[in-house]
Amino acid sequence: MKKAVVLLSGGLDSTVCMSVAASQGYELYPISFNYHQRHSRELNSAKAVAHYYKVKKHLIIETNMDAIGGSALTDSATAVPDGDVERNDIPVTYVPARNLTFLSYALGYAEVTGAERIFIGVNSLDYSGYPDCRPEFIALFQKVADYSTKAAVQDKREIKVETPLINLSKKEIVQLGTKLGAPLKFTTSCYRGGEAACGKCDSCLLRLKGFSEAGLTDPILYDYRGEQ
Amino acid sequence: MKKAVVLLSGGLDSTVCMSVAASQGYELYPISFNYHQRHSRELNSAKAVAHYYKVKKHLIIETNMDAIGGSALTDSATAVPDGDVERNDIPVTYVPARNLTFLSYALGYAEVTGAERIFIGVNSLDYSGYPDCRPEFIALFQKVADYSTKAAVQDKREIKVETPLINLSKKEIVQLGTKLGAPLKFTTSCYRGGEAACGKCDSCLLRLKGFSEAGLTDPILYDYRGEQ
Repeated sequence: MKKAVVLLSGGLDSTVCMSVAASQGYELYPISFNYHQRHSRELNSAKAVAHYYKVKKHLIIETNMDAIGGSALTDSATAVPDGDVERNDIPVTYVPARNLTFLSYALGYAEVTGAERIFIGVNSLDYSGYPDCRPEFIALFQKVADYSTKAAVQDKREIKVETPLINLSKKEIVQLGTKLGAPLKFTTSCYRGGEAACGKCDSCLLRLKGFSEAGLTDPILYDYRGEQ
Repeated sequence: MKKAVVLLSGGLDSTVCMSVAASQGYELYPISFNYHQRHSRELNSAKAVAHYYKVKKHLIIETNMDAIGGSALTDSATAVPDGDVERNDIPVTYVPARNLTFLSYALGYAEVTGAERIFIGVNSLDYSGYPDCRPEFIALFQKVADYSTKAAVQDKREIKVETPLINLSKKEIVQLGTKLGAPLKFTTSCYRGGEAACGKCDSCLLRLKGFSEAGLTDPILYDYRGEQ
């Protein structure tokens, strides 16, 4: 059975990405990170999603990325701002080199498990402007990946990065996940990580917009729904 | 004062690399990894070297890379073989995607500290054949790095990877470190990590060859010096 490593944060996008990999018949090897992020709610969501898909193993990488700092998502002294998805600058929720680091671990894991694909739910339309979510970044990562492993260099084994959501709007991501039966009720998107989503941060705003435009009800609990 | 992040394993190469960065006038920001490697001796060496250079901060990243496995250096069930530096295949001491992962952390750290350089002591002459020590790998990493950070994309701030040892022989590395006063007596190269170096693994063989060809005595303790 062909195998795929799936980067699973426990958010909407990575969960829909997981459902795409499942629908294509891959044996799923999800990898998640406890990088001392602001809240562990997201990681609990990842565990619930992995359990839903009855995976053989859910790899959780532990790392003190908060020791690097530089982000509202790892530094509790920096507040998560209310969302402003129209702005042009990169927000304080950006985590330095996070996707590069996570993809590097995923590459090592794909090499060891014999996976031929790495699925990552990056999205460059309805997103927060992070540089490491863009197609150019993924294309360049693929190039360095093809040069950096024993699998690629010695065994001529391809490990390809798949980004099925990269050109989808949030509306289309919600529609795709719904069609594929992704367990969206288990997901956490809110940057603030309370028991109920705040409905105000960038991530909540984008998610709510997606459900609204798809004409669907978001199954998770919100503290406040803003304009909804 | 210009700043540099230095990947410091505590081995010979990274310590000489640190001495090169110091000689070029950089304020040093060493980063080391407790990745659940076979032995902690190397990390203690890194701490001693960082202390020798009186750095303001020595960042130690903790991560359970052993959960990925696939290497004799993280899996205690896989024995470290005696060295054979003439062979052509990549040995079991290769750690999947390690340099890619470590450089990714270093990139994030350079972004946060405002460092303009990342120094890494990779070497493609007297080495174990690891794919992620070659110039092509470094050049491709640089390309993805230039696309993946807020520093590069928004602030147009260059973070350049420096590899001062990449084309040096072990003999030349030993000579350079000696000239620059690198504290070679604190370093650990042996893959087996005993109190005394084994003198037999790839890493010991290459190191001993370097000192021998340079006509210098290696200041560390060996259990067995082979042909020395």
